[in-house]
Amino acid sequence: MKKLLYLPLFLISQVIMAQSLSKSDLEAMTSDHWQHGLDLLREIVSIPNDAAYKEQITENLIWCKDQFGGRGFSLTELETGGLPLLLAERKAENGEKTILFYFHVDGQAVEKSKWNQEDPFIPVLKEKTSSGEWTEIQMERANTEYDPDWRIFARSSSDDKGPIAMFLTAWDALSENNLSPDFNVKIILDFEEEQGSPLLPEAVKTHRDKLMADMMIIMDGPRHISNEPTLTFGARGISTMTLTTYGPVVPQHSGHFGNYAPNPAFMLAQLLASMKNENGRVSIPGFYDGIEISDEERAVLAAVPDDEDGIRDRLQISRIDDVGSYYQESIQYPSLNIRGMNSAWVGKESRTIVPSTAVAEIDVRLVKESDPNRLFKLIEDHIQNQGFTILDHDPIKEERMKFEKVIKLEKNIAYQAFRTPIDSEAGAWLRGMMERAFGKAPVQIRTSGGSVPISPFVDALDIPAVTVPTVNADNNQHSPNENIRLGNYRDGIRTALSILTQSYK
Amino acid sequence: MKKLLYLPLFLISQVIMAQSLSKSDLEAMTSDHWQHGLDLLREIVSIPNDAAYKEQITENLIWCKDQFGGRGFSLTELETGGLPLLLAERKAENGEKTILFYFHVDGQAVEKSKWNQEDPFIPVLKEKTSSGEWTEIQMERANTEYDPDWRIFARSSSDDKGPIAMFLTAWDALSENNLSPDFNVKIILDFEEEQGSPLLPEAVKTHRDKLMADMMIIMDGPRHISNEPTLTFGARGISTMTLTTYGPVVPQHSGHFGNYAPNPAFMLAQLLASMKNENGRVSIPGFYDGIEISDEERAVLAAVPDDEDGIRDRLQISRIDDVGSYYQESIQYPSLNIRGMNSAWVGKESRTIVPSTAVAEIDVRLVKESDPNRLFKLIEDHIQNQGFTILDHDPIKEERMKFEKVIKLEKNIAYQAFRTPIDSEAGAWLRGMMERAFGKAPVQIRTSGGSVPISPFVDALDIPAVTVPTVNADNNQHSPNENIRLGNYRDGIRTALSILTQSYK
Repeated sequence: MKKLLYLPLFLISQVIMAQSLSKSDLEAMTSDHWQHGLDLLREIVSIPNDAAYKEQITENLIWCKDQFGGRGFSLTELETGGLPLLLAERKAENGEKTILFYFHVDGQAVEKSKWNQEDPFIPVLKEKTSSGEWTEIQMERANTEYDPDWRIFARSSSDDKGPIAMFLTAWDALSENNLSPDFNVKIILDFEEEQGSPLLPEAVKTHRDKLMADMMIIMDGPRHISNEPTLTFGARGISTMTLTTYGPVVPQHSGHFGNYAPNPAFMLAQLLASMKNENGRVSIPGFYDGIEISDEERAVLAAVPDDEDGIRDRLQISRIDDVGSYYQESIQYPSLNIRGMNSAWVGKESRTIVPSTAVAEIDVRLVKESDPNRLFKLIEDHIQNQGFTILDHDPIKEERMKFEKVIKLEKNIAYQAFRTPIDSEAGAWLRGMMERAFGKAPVQIRTSGGSVPISPFVDALDIPAVTVPTVNADNNQHSPNENIRLGNYRDGIRTALSILTQSYK
Repeated sequence: MKKLLYLPLFLISQVIMAQSLSKSDLEAMTSDHWQHGLDLLREIVSIPNDAAYKEQITENLIWCKDQFGGRGFSLTELETGGLPLLLAERKAENGEKTILFYFHVDGQAVEKSKWNQEDPFIPVLKEKTSSGEWTEIQMERANTEYDPDWRIFARSSSDDKGPIAMFLTAWDALSENNLSPDFNVKIILDFEEEQGSPLLPEAVKTHRDKLMADMMIIMDGPRHISNEPTLTFGARGISTMTLTTYGPVVPQHSGHFGNYAPNPAFMLAQLLASMKNENGRVSIPGFYDGIEISDEERAVLAAVPDDEDGIRDRLQISRIDDVGSYYQESIQYPSLNIRGMNSAWVGKESRTIVPSTAVAEIDVRLVKESDPNRLFKLIEDHIQNQGFTILDHDPIKEERMKFEKVIKLEKNIAYQAFRTPIDSEAGAWLRGMMERAFGKAPVQIRTSGGSVPISPFVDALDIPAVTVPTVNADNNQHSPNENIRLGNYRDGIRTALSILTQSYK
């Protein structure tokens, strides 16, 4: 850890408290510790972190223990039955409240050959040429030059090691100036988020007391696509269904049995068609029940600087489903999506048959108001109302012969949604923190459309939880050539500084 | 060719004319020539006949020329631009009318490893054991013993070399007794039926005069499943459509864009659902127009000894599509069948996306009354009435952005149906022939459900055409372990004898 060689200006007056640092103070402090921040980032992304390889995770665990332990955090490994969770704690003197920070250390698997660099775990610095290509430049240039649009390319640079390095940098900046938060800090480090954190919800139940806090801040995920400072108050949950319909027990010649043997693809098409109106709105009664959006919340949704025309242009769609009238509104509701559908063969492999089965894969994205069990019940009732007998297995002959229409329904609730009220105390605190850091109101996302494995954790802990995303949305998360924009990394350090210097009593 | 060593009883009286041969005469004559028939069958199936290999077809062509030329037929090779058609002709003294016989010489490709014998082109004799397995027995046993349920296994034993051997055997039986038909005989031998006879319709136009006849008898295909003597008066035609619907230009994350980006699988499901009612009856107006079945024809349909319960039991279906109320009635109408359907992935490969496209493969089986162009027009009008803009190509961005729902429609008319009226002169003649041969009325199939490549030939020639099938329905046609039941082969010889000895003036 590099020692500061000079005292920042704002410390000339010893009476200044951490909690009164202004935007320019935070900027100056970030600037002073920029090189240290870059060092930390390059160091942490150099440790391979595919959770499929236990030895890689072990190395990351050791690094985290060194880093947080070295900064005076007390460490506890929480047993999960699988890879451990690492809990790091630092109590504030006279700290009354506690904030729990969430980061994950593992990264998506890499397919080296698809990366435009030798090794996804050796970070490289790149700039965009006038032709729009990313070209490597000497890493050393970052020691003396700064361009916010340069990027560091490495696995987990954005998801989610970048935020860890931001946090550590901010912590060091404060420490070296003898400043510290006025609240207790707990940090939970997840080592298998990219595996869906399968053991996390159960671990919360086991270790609930140790994890308990007044607020949780999730340091993961990208900012709004506008790249403006962002707070995200929730995420949709996800559940899935697989529907299988049945025709003749084996495929039949379509000449001999076309318009005689019932066709399972038609049955499935008719069932699916009955679930939505032609404008894409779910027509199953009750599906959208319980969702009320206040005028204040609508104002928040409408304030998100989405480029609706831009989205439609990028997706090449002339209209949107009749659920919301704009993007943010749309994702406040549960979805019913056909993610896959199949019966027999298409294209060159197609055969003149009456297929024996047809399958639809459905995903139902959940919002806070939509209990997945209630939605499943509505869907099942609807299926039965269409004349189907629902089974949980492939029908045996007796069932095929007995019932006019049978369907196999397999269902899975992956995880529920979470959402913290925007007008909560936590929301107000975070807005204040962001306004201090950036001099303007953040983009506030009431819920993100996608689902995150942190949801069950939030749910089980049942405390206000808000995501403070920092990285650029075009970071190639989960893909080859993941990167972090230097401007985002720098803003992220400032964000962490602002969080740690915001009074919470 | 084995010479007869004795004169059959019925020739003791020299005044007996061929045309007055009774059932028992035909039986005796068949019996007398049984060994010769077996020799011919074993010889013809020993010549490999996959039309994908020109040299194999050449060998078959040479064999056919030898056989028919050696029996006094005049031979003409009709150029098709591909594999030739062989026309063999024998005029009758004072023959007034002409019957054109159709056979095909080529066979389906073989996958040797899937056959339960060393070589599909070395015939073997088998009997069914009490456990239901087919076990090889010494071929020599067929020289002294006869069991109608024994079978000869070889490619093309049923489809369609068996019928050629039956015909040649019958011809020889007559010749050796100085008998001959009182009508002119033309025989057309097709060498690429299993390839769909792509050049046949055009060849008919070119060689129409040479092929012209008063009636055509198609010696191909299996008897009714009851294995009763059968006449088949037509076959459904077939046309196909591929429908593709479009969502976002590339698949989108279903969390971010589920219930925002229109889902192409739902669009497709809704379109398909609109084409049929829930009982499987096409609901597109006009689809079944023009089909009228007289009371007499209904009586014929009802007389077919189908085991409706048996079919449903075998297919494991509890109901049938609401087109006909029983099998024979069902296939008198055109079908609209989804033979394949796909959007994105199902099963283990499924992903949480909004797919970008969905595809349905449709086949429309045609009957005589249904002009495929008229049906296509009805379907297209229906699709447009559902709000789709029909394209013949994948939409470009401008089309995606301009139209609410676009669909790509690709269509192909493979071939039209054919059907000869049951109450035609040809029908009466063939019924008489069958009754004389078997002492009972044949099963009469008004139309078969499947489609046969002979249809365009029949259509182009525009003469009454009836199929006289002889082989067992469970012959494993097109599959490994193709076979012919000895009883069917024997009945087939008798059928050929009856045809050739039925007066046609």
